[in-house]
Amino acid sequence: MKPTHIEHLGIAVKSLDTAIPLWEKLLGTKCYNIEEVAEQKVRTAFLKIGQTKIELLESTAEDGPIAKFIEKKGEGIQHVAFAVEGIEDTLAECEAAGIRLIDQTPRKGAEGLTIAFLHPKSTGGVLTELCEDKNKK
Amino acid sequence: MKPTHIEHLGIAVKSLDTAIPLWEKLLGTKCYNIEEVAEQKVRTAFLKIGQTKIELLESTAEDGPIAKFIEKKGEGIQHVAFAVEGIEDTLAECEAAGIRLIDQTPRKGAEGLTIAFLHPKSTGGVLTELCEDKNKK
Repeated sequence: MKPTHIEHLGIAVKSLDTAIPLWEKLLGTKCYNIEEVAEQKVRTAFLKIGQTKIELLESTAEDGPIAKFIEKKGEGIQHVAFAVEGIEDTLAECEAAGIRLIDQTPRKGAEGLTIAFLHPKSTGGVLTELCEDKNKK
Repeated sequence: MKPTHIEHLGIAVKSLDTAIPLWEKLLGTKCYNIEEVAEQKVRTAFLKIGQTKIELLESTAEDGPIAKFIEKKGEGIQHVAFAVEGIEDTLAECEAAGIRLIDQTPRKGAEGLTIAFLHPKSTGGVLTELCEDKNKK
């Protein structure tokens, strides 16, 4: 696997209304997009710093993955996403290297990206996402 | 506050011997530096991806902050560090904005950087570090 950069950091927050102004202050930049990803039961807000987006994640349901994360670990960084080219081949390469996949095949994520998650049991406890922007090509 | 990019992500690991080959495989790049920071009771190993370093943190003592983090939350991302210019002024700005500081004045961190931590209670549960490379100037 040969990612080019950290595409985003996912931060679990209880409330976007509180988190957006906080992160705008911390990063000195404005939130530029808010989007709902129904499948993941989240509303996400994006800010950018250098090559990397900060993705604030608010759960839209009590049984969503972000609500469960906050219940267990509190608010904080929930995942890291690496930008790759050729996400299908990268997933196959990960599987061949013994890394457990959450998504066997890539799916649609926020901001039009094609994404897939690796299982944190295989990645040192770090929930890891792969992202590819197929619209760039 | 106006950081330029994510300087590094700090990942708490039980063992560098296990974590280094794993992250070398995940990032497709070699660990280029291992360093002990006695004051923080850690050994750190560095890999680079795009603008950002991945800093793997292994505790050298049972009562160190990384050992305590792993005991409470398990292995995983422990902090994020933002690159700033003028760390003293940035800290003063953070304090004036009501953000609680862990380090009132900057101190020496790994890789010759000047660093200071903000308290996660003020930063949405995210342990946040500011870094400045004063050797660059």
